[in-house]
Amino acid sequence: MGSRIKQKALMERAERVIPGGMYGHESTLLLPPEFPQFFKRALGARIWDADENSYIDYMCAYGPNLLGYRQAGVEAAAEAQRLLGDTMTGPSEIMVELAEAFVGMVTHADWAMFCKNGGDATSMAMVLARAHTGRKTILCAKGAYHGAAPWCTPRTSGILDSDRAHIAYYEYNDAQSLFDAFKAHDGDVAAVFATPFRHEVFEDQALAQIEFARAARQHCDETGALLVVDDVRAGFRVARDCSWMHLGIEPDLSCWGKCFANGYPISALLGSNKARDAARSIFVTGSFWFSAVPMAAAIETLRTIRETPYLETLVANGDALRAGLDGQSKRHGIELKQTGPSQMPQIFFADDPDFRIGYAWAAACLNGGAYFHPYHNMFLSAAHTLEDVEETLEATDKAFDAVLRNFSMLQPHPVLMQLSRG
Amino acid sequence: MGSRIKQKALMERAERVIPGGMYGHESTLLLPPEFPQFFKRALGARIWDADENSYIDYMCAYGPNLLGYRQAGVEAAAEAQRLLGDTMTGPSEIMVELAEAFVGMVTHADWAMFCKNGGDATSMAMVLARAHTGRKTILCAKGAYHGAAPWCTPRTSGILDSDRAHIAYYEYNDAQSLFDAFKAHDGDVAAVFATPFRHEVFEDQALAQIEFARAARQHCDETGALLVVDDVRAGFRVARDCSWMHLGIEPDLSCWGKCFANGYPISALLGSNKARDAARSIFVTGSFWFSAVPMAAAIETLRTIRETPYLETLVANGDALRAGLDGQSKRHGIELKQTGPSQMPQIFFADDPDFRIGYAWAAACLNGGAYFHPYHNMFLSAAHTLEDVEETLEATDKAFDAVLRNFSMLQPHPVLMQLSRG
Repeated sequence: MGSRIKQKALMERAERVIPGGMYGHESTLLLPPEFPQFFKRALGARIWDADENSYIDYMCAYGPNLLGYRQAGVEAAAEAQRLLGDTMTGPSEIMVELAEAFVGMVTHADWAMFCKNGGDATSMAMVLARAHTGRKTILCAKGAYHGAAPWCTPRTSGILDSDRAHIAYYEYNDAQSLFDAFKAHDGDVAAVFATPFRHEVFEDQALAQIEFARAARQHCDETGALLVVDDVRAGFRVARDCSWMHLGIEPDLSCWGKCFANGYPISALLGSNKARDAARSIFVTGSFWFSAVPMAAAIETLRTIRETPYLETLVANGDALRAGLDGQSKRHGIELKQTGPSQMPQIFFADDPDFRIGYAWAAACLNGGAYFHPYHNMFLSAAHTLEDVEETLEATDKAFDAVLRNFSMLQPHPVLMQLSRG
Repeated sequence: MGSRIKQKALMERAERVIPGGMYGHESTLLLPPEFPQFFKRALGARIWDADENSYIDYMCAYGPNLLGYRQAGVEAAAEAQRLLGDTMTGPSEIMVELAEAFVGMVTHADWAMFCKNGGDATSMAMVLARAHTGRKTILCAKGAYHGAAPWCTPRTSGILDSDRAHIAYYEYNDAQSLFDAFKAHDGDVAAVFATPFRHEVFEDQALAQIEFARAARQHCDETGALLVVDDVRAGFRVARDCSWMHLGIEPDLSCWGKCFANGYPISALLGSNKARDAARSIFVTGSFWFSAVPMAAAIETLRTIRETPYLETLVANGDALRAGLDGQSKRHGIELKQTGPSQMPQIFFADDPDFRIGYAWAAACLNGGAYFHPYHNMFLSAAHTLEDVEETLEATDKAFDAVLRNFSMLQPHPVLMQLSRG
C-alpha cells in the first residue's frame, strides 16, 4: 500500500470547510478506509490519488469516462470551441448540430433539450409528462435512482411527504406490479419511469425482462401515460441508441447524462413528437445549460460512438474481466455474484450479507492497483485494454488470497452497520 | 443592421430538433425579432452572432461573465487543471483549496458545498433548512426567481400544487408582510429566502431596505428559521462578500452561482456552523459536481476578486453608462427608469406599459452594436472599458433618435401581448 500522507492532511482540511468532509456519491464515507477521497490526475483508464498512487479505474468517474480520460479527439474538439467561446449570452450555433446528431442516433427521439445534471433531465421528464397528460402520478421502480432532487433522492432528511405526494412505486421487472400500480392510480398516471436495467447500490443488477418492458409500453399506450427510460447511468454502454431498443421498445422520453460528452458537463432529455407541445410549454433552464464547450465535446463523443468499435471494446474487456474473476473465484473456492452487462459490472460475494468479504476484497484490489467499488456498479471505458484487464486480474488474484488469509478476522464496515441498524 | 442569413437557417433547423426552437432563459422568443438566437464567439466584453455581427454585450451570459470572456488568468488556471484531469472518480484535491478560499471570503460562511446550477444551490438550501428545523414552510418573496425546479419555476405548466404545498410568499422589502407570513405559518417556518435586492424580469429593480433585512434576520433568530440569501444572480457584483454584508446582515446560508468561475459551470451553497449538521444529513449530488476544471477556474476567479479592483471598474463603468443614458434621455425628452446597482442595470421607459418603446429602443441599440436586454436586468464585466461605454452611448443616442422618429408606429411584441392576455 502506497503513501496516504497527503490524503490524510486533505481530509482533515476538508472536514473543516465541507460538511462531513465530503457529500454525495463521491464521498468515501461508506468505502473501506483505504480508499482515497481526493485525486490528482487521470489519463486513459487510470487515476492517480493525491499521493500519486495510481489505479486502473473501474468507476470511470461513476460513468462519464466513456472513451478514456482526456481522450485526444474529444479534448481537441473542446479546445477548438473554447477558443471561440463557452458560456455566452446565447447558445452557440453548434447546439443545433448537437441536437441533430443526437436525435439522429436515438430511434425514438424527434427533439432534444440539454441540461447539466442527470437529475435535471429526469425532473424535466416528470414535469413534462404532467404537462402533457394533465395528470399527477409518476410510477417509479422501488429503490431506483433517478437523481437527488426532493422527489427522488434516496435519503429523506429534509424531504417532505408532499415532495413525493404523487410518486408511486412498482417492482422492477414485475409486470403485474406495474399493472397494479396503474390500477391503484387509475386515470392519473402521467408517466412510467424505468432504468434500462436494475442497477441499484448494494444489489445484484438485473437485466430488463422483455415481458416487463412490453407491459410498460402497452400500459402507457392504453392510458396515454408517457414511457420514460432513464438512461443516465447506462446510456451508450449498452447500445448506440436508447438502451431499450435491443428489446424493441421505444420510450416517449429518454434521459441522458454522464458519458455522452466524455466527462464534460452536459445531460439531455430526448423526446418524441408526441411530447413536443408539452416540452414547449414548460419552463426549465440553468445558468450553464447553453455552454458551448460541453456541446462540442458531445458532438465528437457521439461521432466516436457512431464510427468506432468502442462498444465492442467495452464488452470484450468486460467479458475478459468477468471470465478471469470467475476462474479465480472458483480456484479460491469463493462464490462470486457478477451481474449486469459485463461492461457495467456489479460484483458481490455469495454469503456476504454484511458485505465484509466484498469490502475486504475491494480494499485488497485497491492496494494492488485496481480501483473496484464494493457496493456500486462499475464502468469500463474504451481506454481499458486487455493488458489492463490482465494487470487487474493479477491484483484480484492476490486480493482473493488476502481475503482467505484474513477470513476469520474480517469485520463489517462500521458506518455501513450504523446505517443498516438506523 | 448586419446579415441574418445564418441565423435564419439555424433557427429553421433548431425548430425541428429543439422544442419551440429554444427553451429557457436564453430563448429569444420574447425578444425583438432582430435579436440573434445563436452566437459564434465571445471575447472580453464582446460577442459575435452566427453571422459575425459583433456586439458590446451587456448581458454577460446572464451573469457568468464577470471578468471578461476568455479572461487570460482564468483560462490558464483551467487549462493547467485540464491537463491533469476534470471529471474523475473522486474530487480533485483542489476542491479543498476552493472551499477554504470561498469560506475565507464570505463572512457568514463556515463551510461550502459545490454543485452545478444555481437552482441546485437554492434547492439544497430548502432541503437543508427543513432538515435543520424539522419544519416545512419556506417563505419566498412574491415573484422572486430562485431557479426552474418544480418548487420555484416561474411558469406552472406541469407543476402540481403539492410541489409548492409548503412555499409561502411575502412582499419584498415589506417587513410587515414578512411578519404576517411568519404569523400565518406560526412555528412552521424553516427558512426565509431573499435575493439581495429585487431583480425580477419586467420590473424595476429595488435595493433591499435595511429595516426589511434586519426584520428578516430578527424573525429568523426568534423562531429558529434559517435566513437564506440567494446571491446566484448578484453575487460578487455588489460586494466581495455576501451581498447583504453592506447592510450588516449575515445570513445562515447563501446561494452562489453564475460568475464565481467566470463562466465555467459551478455553483455553491455556503453555510454557517449552525447549519452544518443538517448539511451532513442530506443527500445531494450530481454527475459533474466534483469536476476539477471549474474549481480551478473558480480559485483563480476568487483570487482576482480579492486582489484586483474589478468591482470598482464595474461600478465606475456602470455609473458612466447610467449618467450618459440619463443625459441622452433628458435631451431627447424621454424619461428613463434606471434602477438597481449601475453595474447590474435595469432600464425601462416611463409611460411604456406594454414595453413597446423599450423593445424598439433595445432593437435599435442592437443594430448599433450594443446588446441591451429589454426586460431582464443586465450585467457589466470587468472587461468593459470606458471606451466601450462611449461606443455604446453612440449607439444608444441613435437609438433614442430612431425611437422618436418611429414613435407613432411602435407596436407591442406579439408574443408578449399573448402572454399578458393569457
